[in-house]
Amino acid sequence: MHKEITIQAPATVANLVCGFDVLGMALERPFDIMQVRLLDRREVIITSRDGFPLPSDPALNTAGAPLIAMLEELDRPEGRPPGFENRPIGFEVIIDKHIKPGSGIGSSAASAAGAVVAANHLLGNIFSREDLVRFAMFGEKVASGVKHADNIAPCIYGGITLIRSIFPLDIVSIPAPSLQVTVVHPQIEVRTADARQILRKEVLLKDAIRQWGNIAGLVAGFMKNDHDLIGRSLEDVIIEPVRSMLIPGFDEVKQQCKEAGALGGGISGSGPSIFMLSKDEATAKDVT
Amino acid sequence: MHKEITIQAPATVANLVCGFDVLGMALERPFDIMQVRLLDRREVIITSRDGFPLPSDPALNTAGAPLIAMLEELDRPEGRPPGFENRPIGFEVIIDKHIKPGSGIGSSAASAAGAVVAANHLLGNIFSREDLVRFAMFGEKVASGVKHADNIAPCIYGGITLIRSIFPLDIVSIPAPSLQVTVVHPQIEVRTADARQILRKEVLLKDAIRQWGNIAGLVAGFMKNDHDLIGRSLEDVIIEPVRSMLIPGFDEVKQQCKEAGALGGGISGSGPSIFMLSKDEATAKDVT
Repeated sequence: MHKEITIQAPATVANLVCGFDVLGMALERPFDIMQVRLLDRREVIITSRDGFPLPSDPALNTAGAPLIAMLEELDRPEGRPPGFENRPIGFEVIIDKHIKPGSGIGSSAASAAGAVVAANHLLGNIFSREDLVRFAMFGEKVASGVKHADNIAPCIYGGITLIRSIFPLDIVSIPAPSLQVTVVHPQIEVRTADARQILRKEVLLKDAIRQWGNIAGLVAGFMKNDHDLIGRSLEDVIIEPVRSMLIPGFDEVKQQCKEAGALGGGISGSGPSIFMLSKDEATAKDVT
Repeated sequence: MHKEITIQAPATVANLVCGFDVLGMALERPFDIMQVRLLDRREVIITSRDGFPLPSDPALNTAGAPLIAMLEELDRPEGRPPGFENRPIGFEVIIDKHIKPGSGIGSSAASAAGAVVAANHLLGNIFSREDLVRFAMFGEKVASGVKHADNIAPCIYGGITLIRSIFPLDIVSIPAPSLQVTVVHPQIEVRTADARQILRKEVLLKDAIRQWGNIAGLVAGFMKNDHDLIGRSLEDVIIEPVRSMLIPGFDEVKQQCKEAGALGGGISGSGPSIFMLSKDEATAKDVT
């Protein structure tokens, strides 16, 4: 059994245009590097490789809270993995952060997901991926106050994931062709709470119908490897028209990227980053 | 070149639960039988095999209006198929109706779609399937006052279709496993206009999100042949709670069918028919 493991936890794009709150996508890079060590005492220690100050209480840390949730599950009589029946368990995590917090590409989710994936490996992979998402959501709660899984699920499952339902948790991997993702990060701050607050609680039924036609088209486009259909379906008539007001220049950036050949794109997470999907690397370079 | 053809136009289920207004499905039976004959004069004649009285003006007939739209398109200089450059064209249609009008399984769509598919064949298939949907929508306009394609598209394409967008028309075939469909037809009348009128113009964003999570899950379930996922995704939190009030006993029928093993189901079209999907014939028989 390994005592230590080093893993890469990738950045992710949540709220894929018409897939607001339900679709997310893992990126190949950037990624955080996390070194996780098994301790033979019940303790969770999180440190930052570059000395960035972290909350001393692991329960208040994005990587710590998920590990505490995992340890609590192990406290149940049937929860102990073979070889750990009567031993205390703890984890030390050293995070080498490369995904900038607040950039809207799942920085907190990478810390939370990476910690539990690594810890689970050290325990002999006794937990399912769905369990891991459940634990990691405690990290999102610490980071933003809301237990959401749009970034965590693709970070753990890879590729594109659908959160069909959050309570009860139902995660579906969506097969897709490989796509080039360009992320534009404007030097402004958009607070997730603000981005959430400006959304209307009610939407027009006709807009909702258009949106669910688009998400159905997007999923079909991914699964059929149909780039044109993906492009036509990347339309958000509900969230983007409101949230893009918080991002000066959004419409121009999007327009220019599409003129350069991008399939389409939108706001990454709650912003301010903008992501654009392209079919191939050459187009993605033109988009950049 | 054939002068006459006889085709079968199948019944269809529109508004597949969470796929309100965008998803439709063709059934293997019942189907109308339509005999279409090419005329060498510009005329459209529609008659009923069983002598059922039809509007004498073909423009007011569900099968006639689409054929008139097709003939008008042929009047454009580039519209004539080879061999018809200088000849007048007309069609005679004899309909043997097996899909009961008002039953909510696409009776008018079958007449409209069947007429243009048959006519197109007699002209050497010069029109695309999308063109045919466009023509057939004139029949729906005659029947219900609204140009919709939810029944026409699956009737022409077969299987399950997504209308991602109606203007401009964007139809996507969704591959799916073969499914058994049970249709329950209560002996009541639900007028489409009434069914439309009781819908609220605004819906809660959180309900809309749940709905688009479900339609994404349903499309993924169809394309992955994942019957469990199909079943979990067959949930409509927006339309069904309102419209099912027009169908006494709806909840009980649905509950009993699910207990008998059906994956799920809902209102067919705007009702009053209820449809239930099952994985195999044995379950479908239990459901019946």
